[in-house]
Amino acid sequence: MLIKSQVKYIQSLGQKKFRDQEGVFVVEGPKMVKELLAAPNLELLYLIGVAAFRETGIPFIEVKESELERLSSLSTPNQVLAVFRKPVFTAARFDDRVTLVLDGIQDPGNLGTIVRIADWFGISQVVCSSDSADVFSPKATQSTMGSISRVHVMYEEPVALMSGYPRLPVYATVLEGKSVYEQGRVTSGWVVVGNESKGIREQLLQRATHPITIPRIGQAESLNAAVATGIILSHLTAGR
Amino acid sequence: MLIKSQVKYIQSLGQKKFRDQEGVFVVEGPKMVKELLAAPNLELLYLIGVAAFRETGIPFIEVKESELERLSSLSTPNQVLAVFRKPVFTAARFDDRVTLVLDGIQDPGNLGTIVRIADWFGISQVVCSSDSADVFSPKATQSTMGSISRVHVMYEEPVALMSGYPRLPVYATVLEGKSVYEQGRVTSGWVVVGNESKGIREQLLQRATHPITIPRIGQAESLNAAVATGIILSHLTAGR
Repeated sequence: MLIKSQVKYIQSLGQKKFRDQEGVFVVEGPKMVKELLAAPNLELLYLIGVAAFRETGIPFIEVKESELERLSSLSTPNQVLAVFRKPVFTAARFDDRVTLVLDGIQDPGNLGTIVRIADWFGISQVVCSSDSADVFSPKATQSTMGSISRVHVMYEEPVALMSGYPRLPVYATVLEGKSVYEQGRVTSGWVVVGNESKGIREQLLQRATHPITIPRIGQAESLNAAVATGIILSHLTAGR
Repeated sequence: MLIKSQVKYIQSLGQKKFRDQEGVFVVEGPKMVKELLAAPNLELLYLIGVAAFRETGIPFIEVKESELERLSSLSTPNQVLAVFRKPVFTAARFDDRVTLVLDGIQDPGNLGTIVRIADWFGISQVVCSSDSADVFSPKATQSTMGSISRVHVMYEEPVALMSGYPRLPVYATVLEGKSVYEQGRVTSGWVVVGNESKGIREQLLQRATHPITIPRIGQAESLNAAVATGIILSHLTAGR
């Protein structure tokens, strides 16, 4: 049974402002919730679900489907919902590894998928410009499939951040650059991916030491931002 | 001004059954509509939009925003909507090129994005198992970003189809196969991608002559199906 103030609290977390203020985020559905319960760097604040999801050893608020519906951001609520404190990561260092930089990714689904790709390729740090989507929004966390607990996503201005590391190479994904197939393996530096329609903003583009491109063979106008990120990271950091 | 029977007709095209029966599909929004109006193999049946979208030389039904709302599958209708006859392609041949095979892709957005990826890499034929999402559904066509007019998407049983080409190699995307980074360039054969959660079904897997994998470096459980397709096609058909 939930009291009124709890319902209001959880509903408010649908808004970025309140998530930021409280330093928490919400995930839904058995798969996501289970995966995040197992994450070592996440603190559980609320676990709320239908009876079938009760687990031993975890404080649990049992609700009816209809109550869950009032809390859920999904069109079909999925048994269980959890509120976690945002993950804590060790302080970021940028000079001995590859950091992914996202310049204004707008779609939360794209952003979540990109964080999952970073996790797949062992990239543990992602820097987002402040006008990017919020990785702790329901749709983005859902798309990360649990990678949100492992990848350190920071919101900082890329250009200012890069200024502190003047020697690090900047690989920028652009329409007319060197073929990614000819670029050698990358072990440290920034890999920059731009906004879905506008690409990388000029000020950041000027910092690019290595403009790179996925050569187009057919006729599609563009690739989805997450797909492009997957291809770029695969070639630069994993394959040859 | 639309008459009642036209409204009913266009609304009915939200359902696969009626799209199949009529052999048509619907796209929305100025960008998509303009791109498909320019496609040489598409026949326009209806162009319906607000006054601002009227173009010279094309039969146009002018409607108010509120009328468009009744027709649209989008939560925010976007100025214009067009009904096209499904594209006509030359008969498929499979032995002198790479054909992408999708085994039960469920999400229309994933399917559309994959068709766009195929188009980017110059792959002009995609075979979908009959239980895959419908590429002519509103969400899928939207995700193809116009590639629907260039890529021949067929719904045929992959195993039966492959039986007719016993010599063609079958590259199947699996969890434990040869690294895609070690697989040489592919110029003909089938590249198979499976369902988002279940992968490739057993019967089709048995046909795989080359099981291939994107090696995981980090900890994400999986990659999104469209992202995986992009990486596989990039390595097998474009890069080295």
